[in-house]
Amino acid sequence: MTTLFINAERLLGRLRELGQIGRDGDGRLVRLAGSDADKAGRDAFVSWIRAAGLDIAVDRIGNIFGIWKDRANVDEAPVLLGSHIDSVINAGIYDGCYGVLSGLEAIETLKAAGYAPARPIAVAAFTNEEGVRYAPDMMGSLVYAGGLPVKEALATVGTDGTVLGAELERIGYAGFEEPGFLKPHAYVELHIEQGPILEREGVPIGAVENLQGISWQRVTIDGDANHAGTTPMSMRRDAGHAAARIVTFLRDRARNSNAPTVATVGCMNFEPNAINVIPSRAALTVDLRDPDEQRLQAEEAALAAYLRELAAAEEVTISVERLARFEPVAFDRRIVELVEDAARKRGLASKRMTSGAGHDAQMIARIAPSAMIFVPSIGGISHNPREHTPDADLVAGANILLDVAARLAAQ
Amino acid sequence: MTTLFINAERLLGRLRELGQIGRDGDGRLVRLAGSDADKAGRDAFVSWIRAAGLDIAVDRIGNIFGIWKDRANVDEAPVLLGSHIDSVINAGIYDGCYGVLSGLEAIETLKAAGYAPARPIAVAAFTNEEGVRYAPDMMGSLVYAGGLPVKEALATVGTDGTVLGAELERIGYAGFEEPGFLKPHAYVELHIEQGPILEREGVPIGAVENLQGISWQRVTIDGDANHAGTTPMSMRRDAGHAAARIVTFLRDRARNSNAPTVATVGCMNFEPNAINVIPSRAALTVDLRDPDEQRLQAEEAALAAYLRELAAAEEVTISVERLARFEPVAFDRRIVELVEDAARKRGLASKRMTSGAGHDAQMIARIAPSAMIFVPSIGGISHNPREHTPDADLVAGANILLDVAARLAAQ
Repeated sequence: MTTLFINAERLLGRLRELGQIGRDGDGRLVRLAGSDADKAGRDAFVSWIRAAGLDIAVDRIGNIFGIWKDRANVDEAPVLLGSHIDSVINAGIYDGCYGVLSGLEAIETLKAAGYAPARPIAVAAFTNEEGVRYAPDMMGSLVYAGGLPVKEALATVGTDGTVLGAELERIGYAGFEEPGFLKPHAYVELHIEQGPILEREGVPIGAVENLQGISWQRVTIDGDANHAGTTPMSMRRDAGHAAARIVTFLRDRARNSNAPTVATVGCMNFEPNAINVIPSRAALTVDLRDPDEQRLQAEEAALAAYLRELAAAEEVTISVERLARFEPVAFDRRIVELVEDAARKRGLASKRMTSGAGHDAQMIARIAPSAMIFVPSIGGISHNPREHTPDADLVAGANILLDVAARLAAQ
Repeated sequence: MTTLFINAERLLGRLRELGQIGRDGDGRLVRLAGSDADKAGRDAFVSWIRAAGLDIAVDRIGNIFGIWKDRANVDEAPVLLGSHIDSVINAGIYDGCYGVLSGLEAIETLKAAGYAPARPIAVAAFTNEEGVRYAPDMMGSLVYAGGLPVKEALATVGTDGTVLGAELERIGYAGFEEPGFLKPHAYVELHIEQGPILEREGVPIGAVENLQGISWQRVTIDGDANHAGTTPMSMRRDAGHAAARIVTFLRDRARNSNAPTVATVGCMNFEPNAINVIPSRAALTVDLRDPDEQRLQAEEAALAAYLRELAAAEEVTISVERLARFEPVAFDRRIVELVEDAARKRGLASKRMTSGAGHDAQMIARIAPSAMIFVPSIGGISHNPREHTPDADLVAGANILLDVAARLAAQ
């Protein structure tokens, strides 16, 4: 077939329009799963699916699907494209949205060109990929892949005390389809890298062949509230100090290893959180990631051993709750090769790489051959308003998605 | 004069009654300055002043006074007894309240005994001694002593965004007297030790001869929010990690010194405080105390030097705001000797000591000869529901306050 090109103006316009939906009083982009802002973003996406003349379906966990099928291919398993449109707090406009809108763009372009695929092509926006308000992250795709019962997911209580199921009802996105109702022939997710590698190496296309494992834990430390002025240092059971030791332990260990392990403490809360009271309780989260399962397990074990040691040394009680755990994922070799081949045909350099972030693709990989396409993130910055990818790279990535979708839908 | 004894049942009863006022939903005692709970505690104290037949006065910063005077001594400078009745979050029932209610108890006992003092005797409850909701702490007595303009104090914005002056108006304790309207002849504050020394040494009475200096600072660190999975450890500007380094630096330095310096980080807040986002900002409070001014300055300088080093090493921006700073205070030798003498006469052992905590007495010492009396705190525990002093020690302390007040009011 002749080379097709997506409508750059339409794609970039929608990306910017969606990026303005869900701004808070300070102008920060905050589209947390199940919120009013999320509803507004979903409504915009649904209106674009409708404008493209695709069928619309929403499943019980709120995943939204735009489906392009015809009488000839309706019985075939569809090629699924997608990502998510929920965001972190004070987010950039590309994370997730780029993959969803490019999936829709690819379908519209093929449709307009009169292309007749041998199988349906669908685009999906999965619920709560970020996991900021409701843990675990990648929840919508996890449920879709059968990794978490929908009933259990809907009962998840958020950081703000809300229940996801009730919030989805409230915003009108508790759908009727059973998660998994569309069994994909293949799944392809286009995403910004969210890391510095492609930009640093000047390569526009990343052919993502695997994804690192993720371990999320919440650590709670109980000590003794006491007067900051009259309690000798030697008589303290300071939960806040023990929490600080955990942060420095994780950082030093990750910094001093040659492995690609990353460790992050993103949440920290002290109680009673008063200037002149020694903290009686501290709670923090640990985000550990490594592309190698053995190494990830070794890091988890090292942390557990350190916590036992610390609890004894500081005379504090430490409890650990596992919030999420995903093994590293290997993507489908054939699709990765299709990505490289499409890049080659368009004269674009590509590079095989590992995804440092978690993505819906790692969940869908459980039920269908899957892979991802990355485009550069300037400075590797993401989960930040300064998240940026040049328009030319955004358009190039969407064209590669178009080619790969067409190839996958041809057989 | 014959030895008088305070009414133990009345004092202990009021102490427990006041200790039940301001319990939150979890049963925690939380009587923060200017809150509804503070109002309820103030109302109870005022009703007891009225029951005792004393004059009631409230000044512009909300300090409450119960004044016992007669035609004969009305022109003399009064002996002032007092402390505070506001509390920390999840407090015990003794801190502050014991000194206030014992002051009232001493006056009632002298009054009932027909004692005719040469000068008025008054009891004061100073506003916002704890400084949990509004900084600095000891605010009411600081303003009373002329150390902070009342207008400025009333404009203080609290941790919850409220303004102290508006809150005092709201709860009906924005009085009309100018702070300092009563110029004390002497000031005596009875208080629980809030430290372990008296209990450990089995001494019932502490004759407090000085008070350590206090330095409060807020440290704010700005780094870079970034994705927890894709940002190599070497490329991070992690504000949360830098904050943890400050906590461990202060702790290690204080632990490893032979000086009585204490260092506490009581408040810690991360932004955006999300599991998978590297903290872009961390704010923490530093509480440094030492009885020696030179040493306290040296500790402040050491922290400042470390912050410069840390900012450079971690590529973060660190700003410091001074919240409060008080030099060590030496109390009035003559009053300290009166305390020792009164203890001797009652057959009680006493010990000269340094106050590890800040108290209203350090402020009133600026305008009148002042001293403090300590009683044991079991386990040194304070700012905690387990704060406890045996009844016998509470009664003994109140009787010493009675004797010292009578002696001071006799001339």
